[in-house]
Amino acid sequence: MEKFTRLRERLGHIADVQAAQAVLSWDQETYMPAGGGEARAHQLATLGRLGHEMLTDDEIGTLLEAAAAEVAGLDPDSDETRIVQVTRRDRDKAVRVPASLVSDLARATALAQQAWAQARTQNDFASFRPHLERVLELTLQKAEALGYEESPYDALLDEYEPDMKASEVTAVFTHLRAELVPLVEAIAERPALDDACLRRDFSTAAQWAFGEAVIADFGFDFERGRQDRSAHPFSTNFATTDVRITTRVVENFLPSALFGTLHEAGHAMYEQGVDRGLDRTGLAAGTSLGIHESQSRLWENLVGRSEPFWEHYYPKLQGEFPDQLGAIDRAAFHRAVNRVEPSLIRVEADEITYNLHVMIRFELELELVAGTLAVADLPAAWNAKYEEALGLTPPTDADGVLQDIHWSFGLIGYFPTYTLGNLVSVQLFNQAAQDLGDLEGQIGNGEFAPLRAWLQEHVHRHGRKFSAQELLQRITGGGLDAEPWLDYARGKFGALYGI
Amino acid sequence: MEKFTRLRERLGHIADVQAAQAVLSWDQETYMPAGGGEARAHQLATLGRLGHEMLTDDEIGTLLEAAAAEVAGLDPDSDETRIVQVTRRDRDKAVRVPASLVSDLARATALAQQAWAQARTQNDFASFRPHLERVLELTLQKAEALGYEESPYDALLDEYEPDMKASEVTAVFTHLRAELVPLVEAIAERPALDDACLRRDFSTAAQWAFGEAVIADFGFDFERGRQDRSAHPFSTNFATTDVRITTRVVENFLPSALFGTLHEAGHAMYEQGVDRGLDRTGLAAGTSLGIHESQSRLWENLVGRSEPFWEHYYPKLQGEFPDQLGAIDRAAFHRAVNRVEPSLIRVEADEITYNLHVMIRFELELELVAGTLAVADLPAAWNAKYEEALGLTPPTDADGVLQDIHWSFGLIGYFPTYTLGNLVSVQLFNQAAQDLGDLEGQIGNGEFAPLRAWLQEHVHRHGRKFSAQELLQRITGGGLDAEPWLDYARGKFGALYGI
Repeated sequence: MEKFTRLRERLGHIADVQAAQAVLSWDQETYMPAGGGEARAHQLATLGRLGHEMLTDDEIGTLLEAAAAEVAGLDPDSDETRIVQVTRRDRDKAVRVPASLVSDLARATALAQQAWAQARTQNDFASFRPHLERVLELTLQKAEALGYEESPYDALLDEYEPDMKASEVTAVFTHLRAELVPLVEAIAERPALDDACLRRDFSTAAQWAFGEAVIADFGFDFERGRQDRSAHPFSTNFATTDVRITTRVVENFLPSALFGTLHEAGHAMYEQGVDRGLDRTGLAAGTSLGIHESQSRLWENLVGRSEPFWEHYYPKLQGEFPDQLGAIDRAAFHRAVNRVEPSLIRVEADEITYNLHVMIRFELELELVAGTLAVADLPAAWNAKYEEALGLTPPTDADGVLQDIHWSFGLIGYFPTYTLGNLVSVQLFNQAAQDLGDLEGQIGNGEFAPLRAWLQEHVHRHGRKFSAQELLQRITGGGLDAEPWLDYARGKFGALYGI
Repeated sequence: MEKFTRLRERLGHIADVQAAQAVLSWDQETYMPAGGGEARAHQLATLGRLGHEMLTDDEIGTLLEAAAAEVAGLDPDSDETRIVQVTRRDRDKAVRVPASLVSDLARATALAQQAWAQARTQNDFASFRPHLERVLELTLQKAEALGYEESPYDALLDEYEPDMKASEVTAVFTHLRAELVPLVEAIAERPALDDACLRRDFSTAAQWAFGEAVIADFGFDFERGRQDRSAHPFSTNFATTDVRITTRVVENFLPSALFGTLHEAGHAMYEQGVDRGLDRTGLAAGTSLGIHESQSRLWENLVGRSEPFWEHYYPKLQGEFPDQLGAIDRAAFHRAVNRVEPSLIRVEADEITYNLHVMIRFELELELVAGTLAVADLPAAWNAKYEEALGLTPPTDADGVLQDIHWSFGLIGYFPTYTLGNLVSVQLFNQAAQDLGDLEGQIGNGEFAPLRAWLQEHVHRHGRKFSAQELLQRITGGGLDAEPWLDYARGKFGALYGI
């Protein structure tokens, strides 16, 4: 295994450079002073170029070939075999993208992130527009370089949801939308659930402490991670032993920080749970963004917005906020955090309409990539789709097209994975419930270790060894399926709304 | 200037990697969870190796030769000429140190920093000892690789105070000590100054805000910098537009955070003041640690512990802490912050005895490097020297040999620059006072812009273009001189103690 050992050493160096990039990005979103943006753009561009050069270096190609021969006799599911296989796929893709394009993208997106943050604060899409145009132009160049069969969008989607095609997403989304719309309509005909109790004054410090206490109970390891603030919540990792999450706190809207924290902790526990045997390889990460999102949504929604969860935590929350919640009973609070209502901001949307937010972005991306929509026309197109799907027009671009950081990062093809994650979360949760017996009872007792261990065993530890499809097949015996989520949604919200 | 332009592009990439390293080190000291240490050590080692490889690359050597020819006709003090000259010196030194040693040192020091932090908390030198032994061993290898004429210590000192020799430091320190000891003795014979008013309960948040308000007045630019907490205060920069400082807050000892903040801001304003024309070169930094320390000590002591400074700020400080300081008059407070007393902790020592702390470390380093002192015997040697020089024996190693982070970073040869900085600070301050007229009056009015501009003009903007000796020659017409500091110390403390 001499070549494999040398390969791993090289992969370690690449992982180090990628981790450094992640640290610099994290710092940019959390602590970096405004004046540091230009220099940071240079730094990220250089690290991006170096990481790309190191992965595409001829010697890695040679070592991969030699290592493939060395591992040929091993179990096809062994770490060694999968490291060679997944790295080869990554390298083949990286070789197709020129180093200059990688560097240009890194610089353009670093500047675009700064411009986005300012544009959002100042509600000024015009100042962000040239940055987004540049990012889109470079992203399309990347799609061409990567190659595709049906549509350039497939090449971009493959970065986040390997092996998935835009046409498959369209098919799933079309089916889902057809079932969702009647459910949203049925809910709209019922009396609204009252969530006024969530809109009282909740101190930042107490919100922060409560969220961190819950995720510590879930199993987020603060020895190997931490939470900071940023304009837009995210999770990132520099190693399985250093996984960072961020959230934002809204003093007069309790769900924002709390469910943001539970969500990002779901992502983070996935990264913290990857087997140490994959350390400092490209496999020490989630296997696809859909699977990643299944973890965040599972903890945020299937656990965090469930009745048993609040059986355990509501008395504690009332203890923290006696003036605000003392007179609100648990059932009323549970209804409040599950209120369904068409709204403008994706990250604050309910479980049902969230998917409409995703579909809007997916449709807009398809048009941007196809060239049938110009960036200049994006705010109008955004607003029109919100009016059509949700019956709302954003009063400002800050509440509309500027709300998400993703496009400034060049993350085009990323949004659909959010809804894929919702679907998978229920597939996994149902299987866990079947395997663990009384999962609801465990959650009601604040016992999260069995669920966490189940996810670790079946999902987390494998990192990127198995594709999303392989993983689902191993766990459920089948593939992606929207029906379990639809059953869950109809059951839960049917009961809540008396449909 | 085609080759020069290509050289600058390459130097930009090297600066980016070094900046990334600095970000990762900053994060390690401020926010990184404990579990992240091992991975961070790998990341820093890889970045250190890459930066070293990039600087020692043959093409940089070729470009430097070609660029030297291109700039031959320019003003010898031009940015272009100095960039070539200083980079050549840096590269010549870097070429002498093998990449493997750079990498080993980066990894060993990253691990040693973690071990030091834990050892200090747990007062457990034994757990730090093997790390320090390894760091010393590698540092001695580095000294041999760099080469020297008189002593391996010279090769290490040259990293921090270019062109200075251990024998010169010894000569200056011997003279200084001969004059210092009678002053300390004369002070000891006088009644002690009462500093009980500094040891009351001062809220962390108010201390933090007061310190930040003062350095904002000084001219520290928070758009291009920030302050965070760490176990040991430091300053670092990722660009002249992103300069970070840290401090620590002790609730019942006011000077710790405040003077730490003023000190680090002095360093940081130097970095923030470097001319943008040197951006993304190795010259966008302070020219030597002695000159760097002259800036921190100037703002901390010559400004921050002066009578005119407190004329301006004491009413404000009393306003923040009326219960603690309302009954203490300004003269009493000024005496309190200037109390001279032999103590155990360098960073909390007074202006006079501080230099004895430095001399102890310098002497111990000389012995460690000469091999006449083993790391195992360091705590005993440390304690013996403290007893001899200051009449005190540390009750624990945490208050003794474990108090400083420096050696865990591999910073051997660094300590003497603190005292060199003290000496230079007075040389510069006297010249500024001569040029600016009523400097004391300006400080008394809270007008720091003239002093800041003078330092920017004469020191900051040049970055590393001129050596410490050149800079002193340009400003004062002479070289390093201990007499101005001795005159200052005798005058100030003679008056305070009625000697």
